[in-house]
Amino acid sequence: MKISEKLQQAHKKLLNTSNPEPTKPTFSFEFFVPKTSQGVQNLYDRMDRMYDLNPQFIDITWNAGGRLSTLTNEMVATAQLVLGLETCMHLTCTNMPVSFIDTALQSAYDAGCQNILALRGDPPVDGSESTGDFQYATDLIKHIRKHYGDYFNIGVAAYPEGHPEDDDVDLLITYLKQKYDCGASFIVTQMFYDVEKFIAWCANVRAAGIDIPIIPGIMPISTWGSFMRRAKWCEINIPDYFLEQLEPIQDDDQAVREVGTDLVAEMCRKMVDSGYVNHLHFYTMNLEKATTMVLEKLNLLGPPSLESTPQPESAVSTPSTTNKLPWRKSLNPNRTNETIRPIFWQNRKHSYVIRTANWDEFPNGRWGDSRSPAFGDVDFHSGQTLLRQTSAKALEMWGLPQSPADLAEVFVDYLNGGIPSFPWSDGALSNEINIIRPQLVAMNRKGVFSVNSQPSVNGAPSNNSIFGWGPANGFVYQKQYLEFFIHKDHLASVIGKIRAANGDDEDAGFNVLTYYAVNVEGELQTNAKEDEIHAVTWGIFPGQEVVQPTIVEQTSFLAWKDEAFQIVNEWANALKLEKRKQLKKMDSETEGDEAVDLDRFDTSVQLLDQFQKDYVLCNVVDHDFVHGNDRIFSLFSDIQ
Amino acid sequence: MKISEKLQQAHKKLLNTSNPEPTKPTFSFEFFVPKTSQGVQNLYDRMDRMYDLNPQFIDITWNAGGRLSTLTNEMVATAQLVLGLETCMHLTCTNMPVSFIDTALQSAYDAGCQNILALRGDPPVDGSESTGDFQYATDLIKHIRKHYGDYFNIGVAAYPEGHPEDDDVDLLITYLKQKYDCGASFIVTQMFYDVEKFIAWCANVRAAGIDIPIIPGIMPISTWGSFMRRAKWCEINIPDYFLEQLEPIQDDDQAVREVGTDLVAEMCRKMVDSGYVNHLHFYTMNLEKATTMVLEKLNLLGPPSLESTPQPESAVSTPSTTNKLPWRKSLNPNRTNETIRPIFWQNRKHSYVIRTANWDEFPNGRWGDSRSPAFGDVDFHSGQTLLRQTSAKALEMWGLPQSPADLAEVFVDYLNGGIPSFPWSDGALSNEINIIRPQLVAMNRKGVFSVNSQPSVNGAPSNNSIFGWGPANGFVYQKQYLEFFIHKDHLASVIGKIRAANGDDEDAGFNVLTYYAVNVEGELQTNAKEDEIHAVTWGIFPGQEVVQPTIVEQTSFLAWKDEAFQIVNEWANALKLEKRKQLKKMDSETEGDEAVDLDRFDTSVQLLDQFQKDYVLCNVVDHDFVHGNDRIFSLFSDIQ
Repeated sequence: MKISEKLQQAHKKLLNTSNPEPTKPTFSFEFFVPKTSQGVQNLYDRMDRMYDLNPQFIDITWNAGGRLSTLTNEMVATAQLVLGLETCMHLTCTNMPVSFIDTALQSAYDAGCQNILALRGDPPVDGSESTGDFQYATDLIKHIRKHYGDYFNIGVAAYPEGHPEDDDVDLLITYLKQKYDCGASFIVTQMFYDVEKFIAWCANVRAAGIDIPIIPGIMPISTWGSFMRRAKWCEINIPDYFLEQLEPIQDDDQAVREVGTDLVAEMCRKMVDSGYVNHLHFYTMNLEKATTMVLEKLNLLGPPSLESTPQPESAVSTPSTTNKLPWRKSLNPNRTNETIRPIFWQNRKHSYVIRTANWDEFPNGRWGDSRSPAFGDVDFHSGQTLLRQTSAKALEMWGLPQSPADLAEVFVDYLNGGIPSFPWSDGALSNEINIIRPQLVAMNRKGVFSVNSQPSVNGAPSNNSIFGWGPANGFVYQKQYLEFFIHKDHLASVIGKIRAANGDDEDAGFNVLTYYAVNVEGELQTNAKEDEIHAVTWGIFPGQEVVQPTIVEQTSFLAWKDEAFQIVNEWANALKLEKRKQLKKMDSETEGDEAVDLDRFDTSVQLLDQFQKDYVLCNVVDHDFVHGNDRIFSLFSDIQ
Repeated sequence: MKISEKLQQAHKKLLNTSNPEPTKPTFSFEFFVPKTSQGVQNLYDRMDRMYDLNPQFIDITWNAGGRLSTLTNEMVATAQLVLGLETCMHLTCTNMPVSFIDTALQSAYDAGCQNILALRGDPPVDGSESTGDFQYATDLIKHIRKHYGDYFNIGVAAYPEGHPEDDDVDLLITYLKQKYDCGASFIVTQMFYDVEKFIAWCANVRAAGIDIPIIPGIMPISTWGSFMRRAKWCEINIPDYFLEQLEPIQDDDQAVREVGTDLVAEMCRKMVDSGYVNHLHFYTMNLEKATTMVLEKLNLLGPPSLESTPQPESAVSTPSTTNKLPWRKSLNPNRTNETIRPIFWQNRKHSYVIRTANWDEFPNGRWGDSRSPAFGDVDFHSGQTLLRQTSAKALEMWGLPQSPADLAEVFVDYLNGGIPSFPWSDGALSNEINIIRPQLVAMNRKGVFSVNSQPSVNGAPSNNSIFGWGPANGFVYQKQYLEFFIHKDHLASVIGKIRAANGDDEDAGFNVLTYYAVNVEGELQTNAKEDEIHAVTWGIFPGQEVVQPTIVEQTSFLAWKDEAFQIVNEWANALKLEKRKQLKKMDSETEGDEAVDLDRFDTSVQLLDQFQKDYVLCNVVDHDFVHGNDRIFSLFSDIQ
């Protein structure tokens, strides 16, 4: 969706909801492209968390040329498609052939991204003339408008205090007017701290007949050093009262951040009060804390304001029934009708979205309407694997388990929050697991390894802090779900207990407990019929049909099985790689008694290889969501 | 669905469910075509009730020529499409041009009826030779097989004790073998009471190489007179022990029926024990009691056997999710995907099915998938009107209300079960109304006239005797729904109370109470958005997606509005007609002080005419199904 429309909608909605502060601003975050794959992965996790702060959009900066500009494209696509964040892609135009630009624009288009920040780009570092097909940002704006018409919202940069290369502010407004005349949709400013100067500049912009939104770029203050360095780099004025308050406490990082937060928040309030601004753009520097502190100080966070600001919407208008689901909606226009997903990828949305990227249509409310869709292979760019961690990080987080008991401790450690990420899960566990954590820990200590789970919920209010989702005044429900790896020798005991729990109903097909169990070879055991589809999460809301966003069924479970076992394989490969790295290191150093450690690598790899042969991936749904959460865990009572 | 397949499935399922009595027979009912429209209406109501006994199918007899054969077609279509009863159409072939037969077959085909009982037909009453294109039932069988291939199951008649025109039993078996060779699918026998003779005959049938199901025709015993008359008419043998037990009590109807039930049930048991029979076909004579008594005696009724026998299924195989819904599923093959209907026609399925007969596709699980379908006009055959009662019956049941207070008493009388049918409702109220009856009576006495309602249900087990539907081990839910006519002067008060109940959420669109109110002119007031769809009945079951069979939304409500007001109009017209009939009667008699009564007609007509001008049709949904049933009724607290 276009940023200009999004802001219009948001502020209209804020006005409509009898808001006591009609001038409450919206906000957005800017992220830059990290240098490493692991950095990208970490940033995705951070962006994912910051989604919950409810920004109107995010920016991804441009990195001209080579691997990093591909990464810009990839990050825009991931933010847009997987994370469900409305995204603005930065794009510079100098020192680049037009074919580069066209590829980048097409990639943004394909991801459903409708916002480009059109930049000139820095001149070559060696002081030579700019090369490439374009010389000015206006060239790029014209190019985009020529080839894409109105499809993109085009943002342009502005410099309220002058440009490092040119401090003639009036001339800069003339340039800005040229960009406006070429079709710019909104303005994002350079960082600044002199709010009076900014307000005066806004008046000049408006006086020049430029009537598009002015979005101030805000740089929160983290430390004295970074504050001074950036201000100097951008050649901006620091008002005296900033220095007076910050300089005396410059060695106390904590104090600088707190005072800085007050100063920046005060600056934001003045801008909003001036009437020129109703949206704040934060240069996060890929950090969370400083920006969040400013937003908190401005009282722009928390449930009340979350409730009254609009949910992200896709470029194509969607029916109100699909506004908000318990999983993050992709902003790909092809996926606007997607309201249902299998539970197996609940903690791995990246691979789910990538696997299903080529589906022509998404089932609308019922999985059965689009039976047995063809799951694609997972094809990550930039050398990412299903493990989504570097081998070094995998070793650091999950160690070298030497036995099933060691392995169990990795699972338990993840359940207890000791490690932030897990082979089968993109990030940390959700809070809802607290209810069943003791049972999960106990089963893992028995060598039944839990991969995914949710407790049963019998009609929690939709604004419940743990289980709630969807609009107000609704009720949400879950059936208890448990997915685990179990040793093949223990499977018969569990299935026997499932049969006993179902009793006579098992023959009639009305099972209280249904299960699917499959080994790496794809040999399936189940008490469900082939075409059965089990709804496991659903919600009842005013003004809507029933929403059932999560299901369990056979076709997708078999697709997930391949991924779940492949992850074990990649984990083993990561440890092999780390072993080779250790060997190389040892070759270059003196040998010692570290040889023992290498054996430990071999044992771990062997353990994981044997795991794939001996363990069965199994899931169980308890269809009696009305009566508690213990039936599933009692299935393991005979296992020692 | 074909009867042969249906029986096969049913008995397979009975065997599968570890039934203690694997030889438990299934059963079916035969109805004949009544002579009057009101008779047809009454029979529909009866068939509707007898559906709950769970027959495998019903037969509709054939009435050669003229209006009545059209009625056979119409009744087959209604049973099949509206009542959801698997139907077998009788068809005779003599004394009829082949074009008649083709029309009848096409009509059955169009209704999704897959079963024809192919009969020769009685010879002309005057003793002359049969005319028409066909002479024997075999001609008809060949004709059907030639033109429809395997589409139809073809039943044929058989006479275990000989035919009135021909008592050579061996020759009759030869004829039966000829019908079998032409492609007959099952045999239905003439009535009989001599079970030993029947069993011997079965042995002969099997010996002749006829291996299709033998379905005995059973005539329950209602009174001594009808018992003797029918036996004599069919020239069948009455075993001595029947006469010995019945003759002494022949004047005591009650005793005859009870003893007769024992005798017939005993006869059925013997047939089943013989192994030749696993299905019983009852000649109901359009009556309910005698057949039900035999079924009770045989222990074939009640929840346990209902649970273990299969639900009706359509000709095209349907996913398991749609096996059973709270409303009766149409057996039209085009409607196999229909899993959702607006609540407005909850008590008027006839007109709903007819209005939607030409829809190309039915929404599958979500109404939103097939938005704003075009509702057709209601076009009843045979002079039936929306009122679905003759004017005489309307007068008899609903009298001559002289004032709104009188009108209220008609509504209250219906709520209390005092009258069996109601202008806006096909039959009697369902039991679920008991929970809110006092509130409904109170609101009607205030002049707010209730048309349709359901209490809220928060997760009743799916086998609950009042609210349950769908397969075992599920949970069913309802939002409270109330539809009513209210005087336009009182509407603002009700809407004000709705706004107050919604509070601030009304602006945000998250209403706990949503309403639609529309007058005869189509002027709509609502607090819902145009495209909102409110699920009001849903169920959660093992092995299924969420099922939401009933919804409330604007497009269908506006279509229903036309019908709801037109019914008032037709009621007034019925009273006008009855007045004319009274006038005619008075003309032919002596005049007296009965003139007063005619004024009463005029007052009633005027009342109903004014009603259409002054009243608004309104519905309210309470989306908080978790917390009780009183919020809706408190909306009327300010009305005296």
